[in-house]
Amino acid sequence: MKQYTVAILGATGAVGTQMIQCLEEQNFPVGELRLLASARSAGKKVAFAGGEVTIQEARPEAFAGCDIVLGAVEDDLARELLPKAVEAGAIVVDNSHAFRLDPDVPLVVPEINGEDVAWHHGIISNPNCATIIGLVPTWPLHKIAGVTRMVVSTYQAASGAGAPGMADLEAEIAAMGKGEPLPAPRTFAAQLASNLIPQIGGFDPEGYTSEEMKLQNEGRKIMHLPELRVNCTCVRVPVLRSHSESITLEFERDITLDEARAALEAAPGVKLVDDRAAASAHDRFPMPIDTSDQDLIWVGRLRRDISNPHAARGITFWCCGDQIRKGAATNAVQIAKLLTE
Amino acid sequence: MKQYTVAILGATGAVGTQMIQCLEEQNFPVGELRLLASARSAGKKVAFAGGEVTIQEARPEAFAGCDIVLGAVEDDLARELLPKAVEAGAIVVDNSHAFRLDPDVPLVVPEINGEDVAWHHGIISNPNCATIIGLVPTWPLHKIAGVTRMVVSTYQAASGAGAPGMADLEAEIAAMGKGEPLPAPRTFAAQLASNLIPQIGGFDPEGYTSEEMKLQNEGRKIMHLPELRVNCTCVRVPVLRSHSESITLEFERDITLDEARAALEAAPGVKLVDDRAAASAHDRFPMPIDTSDQDLIWVGRLRRDISNPHAARGITFWCCGDQIRKGAATNAVQIAKLLTE
Repeated sequence: MKQYTVAILGATGAVGTQMIQCLEEQNFPVGELRLLASARSAGKKVAFAGGEVTIQEARPEAFAGCDIVLGAVEDDLARELLPKAVEAGAIVVDNSHAFRLDPDVPLVVPEINGEDVAWHHGIISNPNCATIIGLVPTWPLHKIAGVTRMVVSTYQAASGAGAPGMADLEAEIAAMGKGEPLPAPRTFAAQLASNLIPQIGGFDPEGYTSEEMKLQNEGRKIMHLPELRVNCTCVRVPVLRSHSESITLEFERDITLDEARAALEAAPGVKLVDDRAAASAHDRFPMPIDTSDQDLIWVGRLRRDISNPHAARGITFWCCGDQIRKGAATNAVQIAKLLTE
Repeated sequence: MKQYTVAILGATGAVGTQMIQCLEEQNFPVGELRLLASARSAGKKVAFAGGEVTIQEARPEAFAGCDIVLGAVEDDLARELLPKAVEAGAIVVDNSHAFRLDPDVPLVVPEINGEDVAWHHGIISNPNCATIIGLVPTWPLHKIAGVTRMVVSTYQAASGAGAPGMADLEAEIAAMGKGEPLPAPRTFAAQLASNLIPQIGGFDPEGYTSEEMKLQNEGRKIMHLPELRVNCTCVRVPVLRSHSESITLEFERDITLDEARAALEAAPGVKLVDDRAAASAHDRFPMPIDTSDQDLIWVGRLRRDISNPHAARGITFWCCGDQIRKGAATNAVQIAKLLTE
């Protein structure tokens, strides 16, 4: 079996660290692993596959001989460094926003459009976390009845802002728990503990944030639905690492709840948790504490959209998924695995 | 000026305690204040209007001579005791769900249907907290263009489950902040700190919770719109005492954003906080930390619903309001004040 030289660019961040673990969990055929980060982290050692890997400074030279580069850095660094990886002959799977809407770059959720990896030109983009988590359960319903419209409100975890975002929330909860004054947030625009921040990303002229528009723009590309209409409201909530979404869908054709339930039960990447009569809340519906540190999107609260004038074409549900895993690292490693198959 | 003998039934709970403060703040013409609670609290003294009031056990005899009784107890106790207050000659303003949909009982948000107090038969109901907070900003938009459909996702604070709910969240945050094991929740079905619980109330056969159906059922009655269609998803979030809602509206007629903004700026009970260019997050949009312990519903993130095929008839916004105040106590005292005018 072919072994691959794999590099992770941004190996010390929340997503990069998770990618290392996902490579092991998904039994990725790693011959050599290169962990690339800032000069500050260079020289540190990280455990991998029973051995140790020394972190190197992220410089273009480090891509020589790489088969696959997993990108887990911000847009600007991705734009600067990842084309060098392609020049060096590697295939890049990038988690940043930098290339996602480039028509030469496939944007892939393996459960939805894995076949799109075939037409890459060196770079494949990993979608936004809230996009992945919302689309994985939408796709099997779309296949039945053709989705035309989504109205989505998100409940997004601190981890969406990376390790520094999680540190902000943890520091605030620590202070709050001890009755001490809260430290000033370093990552978020305001206190997050016991609060909600209804802005993720900058505003466009219409008043939507960049994060909100990703679900429509990336969703259209991933599902090959250029006419899909999405109204998204993205809200940061004081949860550590699972995103949740309240999703209302409209379809072209009728869809029964039984059909929807059966499709979700059969769908790859989805776990239906929707037993209204269950004694334990953990079996009645998905919750972020239960969906953290695992790879599936949990779906529940499945019901008719009673506000839709055409009742048979409206579905509402709730879903939760780990933002760092399926929202980022797991999906990227899944894409890389498609490249090896 | 006439002075009124006012009783608060459930005077030691989160809402009852707030009602005492609201009577003072709204300069309610209180001649005598009677504070009624369980036998356990009887004899305790509470400060009011520069003096002290001794809590009495809540028994039917305590209603003798009362002009107005404010109810702040659960449904079963409300059903048992409040009709006795009416028999004793008092007018009741009740915060429970017990009488809200009774056709003989007005259900009132003073900013919307204050005139409905006129036809009471002894009891006037105070709507559900999430209903009040969502409808106060919806009403001025409805008056322009006629609302037909609402898709709402809520972010509801611990205080919606009363003082014990707040105590649950505070105990969990205290333990989490100290790195100790979390205490088992006493009020909620699961841990709330760093989590979300997407169920408030029991499920109906369609899969909606009782809390979710209140927005449609109470909204139809309050706004006199028997055909209004509402799809609501109610979620408990780890926030102490302000509810937030992400609301998408559809209208019968066109409405411009300028019209909507002007209507919200002029609307009683509403504060528009929607300066996208503001340097401080506190001026850019409403957040629960800013809307707690005050009486207005703050509205922001006002924009077109870009998913609506008829763009000129779709509006989306975000709002926050104090659950204990405008969601309960403030609104009840406002209703009582209408009775004195």
